[in-house]
Amino acid sequence: MQAKDIDALLTRFAQPTEGKTPNPRVKAIVDRIVRDLFHTMNDFDVTPDEFWAACNYLTELCKGNEIGLLAPGLGFEHFIDLQVEEREAAAGLNGHGTPRTIEGPLHVVGAPEFEGNARIDDGLDTEAEPLFMSGTVRDGTGKPIPHAVVEVWHANSMGNYSIFDSSQTPFNNRGTIKTGADGRYAFRSIMPSGYACPPGSRTLFLLDLLGRHGARPAHIHFFVSAPGYRKLTTQINIQGDPLIDDDFAFATRDGLVPELRHVSDPTAMEARGVDRPFAEIAFDFRLVEARDGLPSDLVDRPRVAA
Amino acid sequence: MQAKDIDALLTRFAQPTEGKTPNPRVKAIVDRIVRDLFHTMNDFDVTPDEFWAACNYLTELCKGNEIGLLAPGLGFEHFIDLQVEEREAAAGLNGHGTPRTIEGPLHVVGAPEFEGNARIDDGLDTEAEPLFMSGTVRDGTGKPIPHAVVEVWHANSMGNYSIFDSSQTPFNNRGTIKTGADGRYAFRSIMPSGYACPPGSRTLFLLDLLGRHGARPAHIHFFVSAPGYRKLTTQINIQGDPLIDDDFAFATRDGLVPELRHVSDPTAMEARGVDRPFAEIAFDFRLVEARDGLPSDLVDRPRVAA
Repeated sequence: MQAKDIDALLTRFAQPTEGKTPNPRVKAIVDRIVRDLFHTMNDFDVTPDEFWAACNYLTELCKGNEIGLLAPGLGFEHFIDLQVEEREAAAGLNGHGTPRTIEGPLHVVGAPEFEGNARIDDGLDTEAEPLFMSGTVRDGTGKPIPHAVVEVWHANSMGNYSIFDSSQTPFNNRGTIKTGADGRYAFRSIMPSGYACPPGSRTLFLLDLLGRHGARPAHIHFFVSAPGYRKLTTQINIQGDPLIDDDFAFATRDGLVPELRHVSDPTAMEARGVDRPFAEIAFDFRLVEARDGLPSDLVDRPRVAA
Repeated sequence: MQAKDIDALLTRFAQPTEGKTPNPRVKAIVDRIVRDLFHTMNDFDVTPDEFWAACNYLTELCKGNEIGLLAPGLGFEHFIDLQVEEREAAAGLNGHGTPRTIEGPLHVVGAPEFEGNARIDDGLDTEAEPLFMSGTVRDGTGKPIPHAVVEVWHANSMGNYSIFDSSQTPFNNRGTIKTGADGRYAFRSIMPSGYACPPGSRTLFLLDLLGRHGARPAHIHFFVSAPGYRKLTTQINIQGDPLIDDDFAFATRDGLVPELRHVSDPTAMEARGVDRPFAEIAFDFRLVEARDGLPSDLVDRPRVAA
């Protein structure tokens, strides 16, 4: 089909009903997406069977609540981060805070709350390496921010997330830590393994057709917030994971791979109250002051509430 | 973001995993769709909230099995028909058959079968105008095709389809009619009303944002097939419907609006065995001979089987 014939069709299809008023932004974006898809179908001579197979794929993907998994896999969620940073830069904000990275689809609202120090694993995984992570929430000048809130969530040693994985106790490896006046947070948990898209998932099905794997390096998610500061959505990677530079979700960023110390000294083990070698991570978060004129730091997306 | 920066990201995101082989066609099409979407997000400065609202919309749309309803509403299903016709023309086939038009999402496999003459309404809608439709399945020269099969389905007088509308008896207004040696088919049913996207549907939600209605003129669907001929997927419109030139699904086509006769002559009513005025439509289908080198006349898409 010629471009002008496609244009003529699009003009006809996009005609509003007499007396009705479109939402101009939604209409402009949808018209653009439809135009691009028509051209793609034309350029690739997409067959009816291929078109309906794609619709069927999308239906199954959505019925499995997998858009939030495919979106990072195709780079969209990292792309959104870059777009927000470009908007921040345009508004005069030059990154001196901890880098943001993708939230992913596995946050759950309503995790247990702790003051300053938390233990967020349920203690049932006696094979896993205990992990102690701590640090201070600071402002751009390095000064501790009092009364910050650190929300943390991560996979267990099988790479699975509680709530989504019903074999775990609810909220295992999830917690909300309120810091005191010194901005200090600390938690004990277990060493996460990298997440992988579930076998049989529609996300993995497409990644496989694209010749890609669907695995992530081991990582820990955070929301960090404090009154007067922009909310930070980020992750740290577990140093040494072979997938750090090959994350299917493209979430690894400079400054988010802190040093990991494996400790097997008996005195240190006793001081930590563990009977096994453990790992330690020290990591300070730096928040950026909120001010008018910056793009929103809050993201409105569907989240599971348990 | 500059186009070259987007290109660099896309190249990185589209990199296959070492040792894995993509499906080249799927990869090329998905890469193109992702590229176009990145550019759209960049050009319109789409916010994270907007992105996730779109994902959420798509999820709800698919959970409600509505892609098959939105696709014609945005023109995709008619576009596919035009693509197939272009392929047919390129293969030397110049339309001398009945025009095709969209199947829509409401066909159900397994309707009752009849020989030559059928009654396909359940007789419960005593207010509706009885409709008698008949004709001959012919080849390109006008010769009757023996042993053709005419599958018919249409909405009831409320615009609703049986199976999808559980208030109707199963397979009301649906039937599969096998013709004899003379290619004649005939059926009695009731006059359909135009279909409208269900109130509260996600399809109607988007159409409303686009300033468009979601209604169709009254119509009757057909599959017509016979050994040695290409399967025809088409519809006729009920003449006089005010939406004939304003179908939200863009399915109206020249040659598919046959003359409708309203008959109130008592002798004719008696001959038809009805106690009310009725309507009559005469319509012959013309099929095209099958031959190698033409695009497939069969469409593989998910269909409900009751």
